[in-house]
Amino acid sequence: MKNISILGSTGSVGTQTLEVIDYLDDRWNVISLSAYSNINLLEKQIKKYNPKYAVVIDSKSAKILNKRIKNYSTEVFEGEKYLEKIASLSNLHLVINSIVGAAGLKPSIAALEAGHTLGLANKESLVIGGHLIAEILNNKNAKILPVDSEHNAIFHLLENIKDKEIENILLTASGGPFFNKSKKEMNNVTVKDALDHPNWDMGNKITIDSATMINKGLEVIEAHWLFDVDYDKIKVVVHPESIIHSMVEFCDSTITAELGVPDMKTPIQSVLTYPNRTKGEVESLNLFEVGQLNFKKPDFNKFPNLKLAYKAGKKGGSMPIVLNAANEVAVDLFLNKKISFLEISKIIEKTLGKHQKIDFPDIDKIMEIDKWARKTAEEECK
Amino acid sequence: MKNISILGSTGSVGTQTLEVIDYLDDRWNVISLSAYSNINLLEKQIKKYNPKYAVVIDSKSAKILNKRIKNYSTEVFEGEKYLEKIASLSNLHLVINSIVGAAGLKPSIAALEAGHTLGLANKESLVIGGHLIAEILNNKNAKILPVDSEHNAIFHLLENIKDKEIENILLTASGGPFFNKSKKEMNNVTVKDALDHPNWDMGNKITIDSATMINKGLEVIEAHWLFDVDYDKIKVVVHPESIIHSMVEFCDSTITAELGVPDMKTPIQSVLTYPNRTKGEVESLNLFEVGQLNFKKPDFNKFPNLKLAYKAGKKGGSMPIVLNAANEVAVDLFLNKKISFLEISKIIEKTLGKHQKIDFPDIDKIMEIDKWARKTAEEECK
Repeated sequence: MKNISILGSTGSVGTQTLEVIDYLDDRWNVISLSAYSNINLLEKQIKKYNPKYAVVIDSKSAKILNKRIKNYSTEVFEGEKYLEKIASLSNLHLVINSIVGAAGLKPSIAALEAGHTLGLANKESLVIGGHLIAEILNNKNAKILPVDSEHNAIFHLLENIKDKEIENILLTASGGPFFNKSKKEMNNVTVKDALDHPNWDMGNKITIDSATMINKGLEVIEAHWLFDVDYDKIKVVVHPESIIHSMVEFCDSTITAELGVPDMKTPIQSVLTYPNRTKGEVESLNLFEVGQLNFKKPDFNKFPNLKLAYKAGKKGGSMPIVLNAANEVAVDLFLNKKISFLEISKIIEKTLGKHQKIDFPDIDKIMEIDKWARKTAEEECK
Repeated sequence: MKNISILGSTGSVGTQTLEVIDYLDDRWNVISLSAYSNINLLEKQIKKYNPKYAVVIDSKSAKILNKRIKNYSTEVFEGEKYLEKIASLSNLHLVINSIVGAAGLKPSIAALEAGHTLGLANKESLVIGGHLIAEILNNKNAKILPVDSEHNAIFHLLENIKDKEIENILLTASGGPFFNKSKKEMNNVTVKDALDHPNWDMGNKITIDSATMINKGLEVIEAHWLFDVDYDKIKVVVHPESIIHSMVEFCDSTITAELGVPDMKTPIQSVLTYPNRTKGEVESLNLFEVGQLNFKKPDFNKFPNLKLAYKAGKKGGSMPIVLNAANEVAVDLFLNKKISFLEISKIIEKTLGKHQKIDFPDIDKIMEIDKWARKTAEEECK
């Protein structure tokens, strides 16, 4: 049995990770779980997996949970800083970081500093702290296994490949629910429209990010840090079926691709069984039924968030921190029906415009910039 | 500089191999070339590459060539047995076998027995002598690098992969020029129709084989021996664009694929630069221009040759020898307008029906069965 900590265990990736662990049967011992405030689900998970530790970010929720599970041996911690503790316990074989947002960075750093293998579903860790994480990976015997289906695919395709033979990374994008809408039509889309993703069943934040295509932009930045590839060599290919999870183009013009049914359990399982592959629950892809795979150019004009992400990534330094924070605020405002869909990118652009770039910000500076950008973005809305 | 012998240097793969060698500039020293009877082209090649040896199969042509190049240092040999000599010279780094047909087997065996790396474009070597070649590969420090685009793709996709994790090999097939014709329409197709392949520019024999889809059947048998995979795990996927060169499906339902512009120079170059990839002449694939990839089930009823090939492969022993020989005869008869397109498979089926299977035939027995099958197939025509 190997030991695992799952940060963000009540979210989409977290719950699916536990389902795959159930399927894999007796291979993993769940040491710690965490939730922001969904203590009803966390309570069920604690009763089932009997972890040593559980972290709840929301203070009130933590206290309620503590009472509810007082007859269980699980120790409940309250507050964000304990995420770092459960990510860096000494006896872990794998840390899954499936927290949503900038809060994921510190636990990622803690896991890697401890020399652990990190199953990373929190893309913000790399978007806002890629430069810090790259430094740790250079110095420590730690490893990142990407959980995102695109990066997981690229990670597999690049195994045993010589760096100099890589020409381009082709990141596929579904295009989201609005790819075929005109910019005018996009003006009137509702929260419900935006949450209706054609292929993937994901959390709300990432589903909106997929509709604005900033999700793909964040993934471009993520890929830059994960695979140490220049932005000019990371291309977005819109592929509405989400069957090809991503591709790599080599210097001899050969392209390799990873395909499969769009189901997060495939990359999650590959992280849990790495470096091996084992039979899983996900059905095999029937190409005859699929029949057809389509490819289209992304429209940077219709999806300005994608352009903003490339721009912020290329500028580097603190710009992606601002991009990410402003987006988190704007998406939240959209989900709460405070702003329209197209205003999301306007808020991000304005916030970026007000920021003076800082090179190599340390963790405290990152958090400070993150806070500043959130405040600024909120003010933009008013 | 590394030393290479190219068997079948005036054919499609042979001439393209020399073009890639030109492009790669000073990496390869051409030691020997061979042709069946195309001495005009062979003469030009000799004058350009100044090989040590040239083999001409046709006796009359050999004598003419000998006179024409008497002022050159190249030694001309006459007859098939010298192919084995130039395949097994002691100082070779690579032997390309791009001979068409059963005549390719003995030189393949000679190259591998000598411990050489064999760039194999002669699929018949494996179709009729796979059992012998598998034995040599088990005992000698020799290696096959497949030149066929499909097998070359699979070879790359399987590098560093654990055998037990392979679920299926998905061999793509263009479907040839008649895939959308009805069986009735196929009755009337001409030689010209059949030679008009939609994607690949190849020799006549292989183009007809592609139209009857026996080419894919022979490739199934080839894949069985090359990758040591059961026939039940080798599936044919019709993919009219020939952009995906083949795929591998793993036990976790993940599929990897190799894509590229359909151009034989890509796999040829990958063999010449193995284990590295280098920039090549072939243009990179523009997926936005391609726009769409399609997948269809093969129709075993409309393409009985494909069914016959699976059947012969599964029965094993000497059956694929008969399949291959009868097909060579039938294709020749069709190209010479002696039989109709649909009669090709009838001749193969009848010849197979008259054969009593022999297990593990040795090389002499293979040649004997090959001769018998040719005679029988010719008689079927009368």
